Amino acid sequence: MSERSLYRPEDTRFEVDIEALITRLRPLLPAEGLITHEQGRRAYECDGLAAYKQLPLLVASPETVDQARAVLQICSESRVPVVARGSGTSLSGGALPHPQGVLLSLAKFNRIKEIDPHRRIARVEPGVRNLAISEAAAPFGLYYAPDPSSQIACSIGGNIAENAGGVHCLKYGLTVHNVLQVTLLTIEGDQVTLGSLAPESPGYDLLALLTGSEGMLGVIVEAVVQLLPNPLTKQVLMASFPTVEAGGHAVAAIIAGGIIPAGLEMMDGPAIQAAEDFIQAGYDTQAAALLICELDGGEAEVSEQMRRVETILREQGADRIRVARDDTERARFWAGRKAAFPAVGRLAPDYYCMDGTIPRKHLAQVLKRISELSAAQGLRTVNVFHAGDGNLHPLILFDGNRPGELERAEQLGGQILELCVEVGGTITGEHGVGMEKIDQMCVQFRPEELEQFYAVKAAFDPQGLLNPGKAIPTLNRCAEFGRLHVHRGELPHPQIERF
Amino acid sequence: MSERSLYRPEDTRFEVDIEALITRLRPLLPAEGLITHEQGRRAYECDGLAAYKQLPLLVASPETVDQARAVLQICSESRVPVVARGSGTSLSGGALPHPQGVLLSLAKFNRIKEIDPHRRIARVEPGVRNLAISEAAAPFGLYYAPDPSSQIACSIGGNIAENAGGVHCLKYGLTVHNVLQVTLLTIEGDQVTLGSLAPESPGYDLLALLTGSEGMLGVIVEAVVQLLPNPLTKQVLMASFPTVEAGGHAVAAIIAGGIIPAGLEMMDGPAIQAAEDFIQAGYDTQAAALLICELDGGEAEVSEQMRRVETILREQGADRIRVARDDTERARFWAGRKAAFPAVGRLAPDYYCMDGTIPRKHLAQVLKRISELSAAQGLRTVNVFHAGDGNLHPLILFDGNRPGELERAEQLGGQILELCVEVGGTITGEHGVGMEKIDQMCVQFRPEELEQFYAVKAAFDPQGLLNPGKAIPTLNRCAEFGRLHVHRGELPHPQIERF
Repeated sequence: MSERSLYRPEDTRFEVDIEALITRLRPLLPAEGLITHEQGRRAYECDGLAAYKQLPLLVASPETVDQARAVLQICSESRVPVVARGSGTSLSGGALPHPQGVLLSLAKFNRIKEIDPHRRIARVEPGVRNLAISEAAAPFGLYYAPDPSSQIACSIGGNIAENAGGVHCLKYGLTVHNVLQVTLLTIEGDQVTLGSLAPESPGYDLLALLTGSEGMLGVIVEAVVQLLPNPLTKQVLMASFPTVEAGGHAVAAIIAGGIIPAGLEMMDGPAIQAAEDFIQAGYDTQAAALLICELDGGEAEVSEQMRRVETILREQGADRIRVARDDTERARFWAGRKAAFPAVGRLAPDYYCMDGTIPRKHLAQVLKRISELSAAQGLRTVNVFHAGDGNLHPLILFDGNRPGELERAEQLGGQILELCVEVGGTITGEHGVGMEKIDQMCVQFRPEELEQFYAVKAAFDPQGLLNPGKAIPTLNRCAEFGRLHVHRGELPHPQIERF
Repeated sequence: MSERSLYRPEDTRFEVDIEALITRLRPLLPAEGLITHEQGRRAYECDGLAAYKQLPLLVASPETVDQARAVLQICSESRVPVVARGSGTSLSGGALPHPQGVLLSLAKFNRIKEIDPHRRIARVEPGVRNLAISEAAAPFGLYYAPDPSSQIACSIGGNIAENAGGVHCLKYGLTVHNVLQVTLLTIEGDQVTLGSLAPESPGYDLLALLTGSEGMLGVIVEAVVQLLPNPLTKQVLMASFPTVEAGGHAVAAIIAGGIIPAGLEMMDGPAIQAAEDFIQAGYDTQAAALLICELDGGEAEVSEQMRRVETILREQGADRIRVARDDTERARFWAGRKAAFPAVGRLAPDYYCMDGTIPRKHLAQVLKRISELSAAQGLRTVNVFHAGDGNLHPLILFDGNRPGELERAEQLGGQILELCVEVGGTITGEHGVGMEKIDQMCVQFRPEELEQFYAVKAAFDPQGLLNPGKAIPTLNRCAEFGRLHVHRGELPHPQIERF
């Protein structure tokens, strides 16, 4: 491949004159909008992946688009890295600061500018919390569908950067399916509008390209998202299975039956027990796997689908099926699932949350293989996941204080992600690559594909200043890590079927 | 904006040594795979937009990926433009040849390589016809959802290049929502896999970027598309309205009611009459507007939605509602709609089919304004369209043999597209920009946005060899055409609300 771009991700050494930078930024930002002292910067040293910590050189917290543009222009001119941050809830280190860079906080961009119930859109600033959009839309009987677990705290800008998912994404799509338009500042401070309020836009689909690009292409300063009408009715059921495999097959059978539940979640035995101990959701602690299925829509539609789902579940060997009688019980069924992560957190001093995605048909086999890999590492793994999407969240339990356990947990995590790639899946479903999974990107992609990513990056950020070192690994990094890729090179690419 | 890319779309002058090119290509292709004589090239001089004709310099018709790669490598090395072509059904001139270029026909890539009913995917070559995928999937009770009117003939590669839509895209999404993975050759012959079989992929979403990129970024050599199970049941109704405005409001009310029909199409009075005269579908020729609504799903679900739709239609002033009794009648209701274009073709010697998309709430106003604009030009316009998507297909009737009528029709077409942009819509819903709407791109986008498109193009095709001159206009071209954009510059961008 010829040399196509100015930017090569290898160029990640920066030499920043901090005094000069402060002198230029100070007059452009409000007094508290530029944080230089260590204590203030400390608050930004990590995001939701607290295992990775890094003090930023400076923190800039603009209040207007003009201020944000000025910060970017100065950083671009002075060749200073910029890491944008919303609420800092990333689970993959997406907002981890750069030691030579400006941490650009968008926390003050927190206004909901417009709710238009007729067009069913919300126009919001990037720092608006995910749940705040649904709260503002609620008086009109509308809501914003993607619902990551962190929705109380996470920002819509971060959701777009990570293409966030959630329980309801099976039916209502990921963030990319629910964002209509984004106003972006390039690293050079140019303002570009991506997408439109119409169902399709001409030109290259830069909005889809931006969504999930992990802060590498630009800084979002406004978003228009679509709102959906609240479903007329909802039903939730829980089904117990004697084996994890049977639960996996049931998931595949429901989807194969042409039913798209609003949510279809699975927990394995240890997760059920942990959740029940923690929150008394009324879970069947005898079950090896529990499936929680939510159906929504018109009343007759939901009743009919409920009957069909129950039939399928029984055919697939469900021991016990319980349908929530009312809103209270529905909330209780979900409460256990939603509290599963903190509940599992009580089982061991530490846990490591994975986020691989696999074709649903491999669910049963992959779960079995994960338990074998865990046993080989002498660690326990608990599974709580978006079964309908094939999006696994194995939680690897370990004790960071015991010598070698963190390393074994990381190794197991890597093995699990590579297993996901092996069966034709991917290393991330909804948490992003960030810092955490950057090495596994070398397993996921071939050098030609990484080169194409670099070229696209250069089309937005030719100096490589936005979130350097994240999401897309350098070829050097892959070469160091990458015996795996070479090893796999023998196997047919991209769908590798070992099972 | 700084100079980011090697490629500027102004660089579209090419000097090709045809003898040398033939000498290099001849040994790499099968005997009939390189067409040099004029008669053979003549068959490729236009696509579905027959008003634009251009002989290609050469036609290459490879049979294998290796042959296609070799053609691209030679063209890249020799700086020869390449225009890829599937079935040549583009309505916007997307496959119009370049006078100095190779027309790369993918017609021989017509194998369905795999139907996997369990994973519900089809792996196909790019020249496979859209309908052939559904036919191959039918024995498994599956189908491929996007259904452009040309589905008997159009190829999946072309569908991806244009992000094709169709009647059922309201519920089942555009091509971008139904393609999982694409294998692409870059102009340099590198093979890149975009997307994955899992619900989400890490890295930049190059698959979404490619979809709808009109052959400007690479050449598709394989696609994996998702298949859907046939709906358990279907119902189709027709509703007559006394005014086009009332029909427009009814469409908005159905969607606002949280119902997403499988299809929701509208025809105005002249279209109804033309279709009825042509095919005797049993349409109400007294109606000023006819709405055809298809609902699908489980039986109880469809019955319930049918009741709700009927209630809404009556509230919105429907004079008459007819529900198809059986498959035969359902097919007859649709037959009129599907034959509407040829039916309208009988009303005048020529017609010009537009493809603007607008926010649904403006439907009634825009239809009124179109009829005013038509009257001012002394032309008739007939409306047949995907109402649920807000995707208009005004058909401008004219007689190309009368002096000045073609020019007036083109002028009216431009005015209609600009009207779509004015109300916050776009200049194309599903037909692409191609050659046809390239000037209107100057109305749709600001120079900063066009610059961003050029940079992305350069990331794939730094020499600008793939389909040059299409889809994305040069700034020079916009400057020549562009008084409109400057004029509109005063208005708030991007959602311009004049009404």
